Amino acid sequence: MLKSPLLKKLNIEYPIFQAPMAGVTTPELVAAVSNFGALGNIGAGYLSEKAVDQFITDIQLLTNKPFGINLFVPEEQHVTDEQINLAVTLMNKHLQELNIETNEIPDYRGMDQFERQIEVVLNRNVPVCSFTFGIPDDEIIKELKRQGIFIIGTATTVKEAKLIEKAKMDAVVVQGSEAGGHRGSFLEGEQLIGTMALVPQVVDHVSIPVIVAGGIMDGRGVIASYTLGAQAAQLGTAFLTTKECEINLAYKEALLKATEEETVLTSAFSGKMARGLQNKFIRSMQPYENKLPPFPYQNAFTRKIRSEAAKQQNEQYMSLWSGQAPRLTKNISVNELLNQIIKQCKEIKH
Amino acid sequence: MLKSPLLKKLNIEYPIFQAPMAGVTTPELVAAVSNFGALGNIGAGYLSEKAVDQFITDIQLLTNKPFGINLFVPEEQHVTDEQINLAVTLMNKHLQELNIETNEIPDYRGMDQFERQIEVVLNRNVPVCSFTFGIPDDEIIKELKRQGIFIIGTATTVKEAKLIEKAKMDAVVVQGSEAGGHRGSFLEGEQLIGTMALVPQVVDHVSIPVIVAGGIMDGRGVIASYTLGAQAAQLGTAFLTTKECEINLAYKEALLKATEEETVLTSAFSGKMARGLQNKFIRSMQPYENKLPPFPYQNAFTRKIRSEAAKQQNEQYMSLWSGQAPRLTKNISVNELLNQIIKQCKEIKH
Repeated sequence: MLKSPLLKKLNIEYPIFQAPMAGVTTPELVAAVSNFGALGNIGAGYLSEKAVDQFITDIQLLTNKPFGINLFVPEEQHVTDEQINLAVTLMNKHLQELNIETNEIPDYRGMDQFERQIEVVLNRNVPVCSFTFGIPDDEIIKELKRQGIFIIGTATTVKEAKLIEKAKMDAVVVQGSEAGGHRGSFLEGEQLIGTMALVPQVVDHVSIPVIVAGGIMDGRGVIASYTLGAQAAQLGTAFLTTKECEINLAYKEALLKATEEETVLTSAFSGKMARGLQNKFIRSMQPYENKLPPFPYQNAFTRKIRSEAAKQQNEQYMSLWSGQAPRLTKNISVNELLNQIIKQCKEIKH
Repeated sequence: MLKSPLLKKLNIEYPIFQAPMAGVTTPELVAAVSNFGALGNIGAGYLSEKAVDQFITDIQLLTNKPFGINLFVPEEQHVTDEQINLAVTLMNKHLQELNIETNEIPDYRGMDQFERQIEVVLNRNVPVCSFTFGIPDDEIIKELKRQGIFIIGTATTVKEAKLIEKAKMDAVVVQGSEAGGHRGSFLEGEQLIGTMALVPQVVDHVSIPVIVAGGIMDGRGVIASYTLGAQAAQLGTAFLTTKECEINLAYKEALLKATEEETVLTSAFSGKMARGLQNKFIRSMQPYENKLPPFPYQNAFTRKIRSEAAKQQNEQYMSLWSGQAPRLTKNISVNELLNQIIKQCKEIKH
């Protein structure tokens, strides 16, 4: 495997990024990936500044290798009383199905931690900072760069990738339609372009390094990403079933037995489109998809359902984020997974 | 580039199939691809037995290399009076927009040419016969095999690929969600799995050779297909803009300037889902998608609109089939295109 300029710049050995999956990444996961010589990433989107700081401390106890952090760029969103009433009604109905009686309205404000998260990233001098759902202000980019932090944007189209390059970010994660979890799109009109089609088109239109996400689970996908012109591959679902990830057991079991036909796109969990395994919650919310509060409000409204379902090991009410290749998930450690991937990469001839 | 068992078996030089695009393939296109050492394919789905026979004669005047033919496996479909009335009303409305006044009801019967097409394939001993929209009867497969004809199925999921292998077909084209034109799905529930995710999952579950279709436009995609475990790549959109293809000029111009964001899935043209560039016809038919006659009836109902639009060079009423990578289309000859692809394949290192 050739060592691309991106790997040299990041001071990592292998062209593999662990996707920064907000809500499920653990310090053990991030550190194990980085210790192997790949890039671990904290999914910090939902974390308070304190939690971000603690997460970094925990990782640094486990590794002295580079790692990254991912933040959600906030958008101005308006939520109407009608949307709130609908969300509360539907959530209480679902909580009843989980045998929880409640009339409380969850705290759906307070998603304004972005600037404080940035402060922590700067204070702790995290080597790599990636962004999803948009491009941060010019001032933030300049400040991060001044401190030598490597900045990565997330794009789902050529147009978004070009804007990321124009904003002077250092690299771009290109997310194909196969990817699990949230769509990183930030321009209007949700776009679902498959990885095989999207990557070469982006590579032809930007000069910053491209990292590929979407459908990549093993050495075949990593080398294919290289072939398409990318300098690294970002894997999410493949890491979800590793021992270090500690997702809910019912979720893990659902992933390990899922097929490629079982994922759907839904905005029911968070107000933003994301790909996960079909379940009862998604099906029953389907008629309301366009009437729910936007992200991040809807995410707050479903928090209690998700945590109760997790406690009850009831996968029918959890967000079972997954890419389109769950047949390739394995119940192994990060080290075993990465060793298998690297071995497979070395064996591929054409 | 390694010469895979599939290439040896087919007696072709390069792991590239020209997709059998029904309605647009010409003898010149098929012969130019085969003469180069790749596999040209006739899209014969809509052709009468006579036309198929003539097509083969025309190709054989231009090449003595192997080529293939693709047929549509018929399904039993019922059409209701309500569907017919809706289709006639909508089509006449659209014809008026093209300044054509008509009250005639198009001939929507007579799509029963499948068995007679098979007879021609057997009589003319076409080297390769591929099928879309299903698996032909056991008797047909046996008869084709008895004559040494190489038989290929089309799958969009692991389950479909396994059925194709079980039916003793020789290879399978795996169609990712990026692909232009008709979805080849034949089991219930339209599935849109991206190429990067789909191919390795299929390769792990069948032992017959896999050919990849969907989003592949150049040498990067061809080598990536190999890397994912396939033995050849099938390109459609890349051939549409070659000089030998002779598609309508307005269609060609639309493809050459299109971006990856412009394709949509629609069943408005034929009654079956297909991917093409968005236009006025698709947009205006959107509310009726579920009420139209099924394939192939709806295809007959839109025939006049498509041919009139072509005459008028009005791309807003044509079926502008395209995969998700139209930015990579080029206005060149088949020879130039294939030479560039092979050169690019040879240059790729990892």
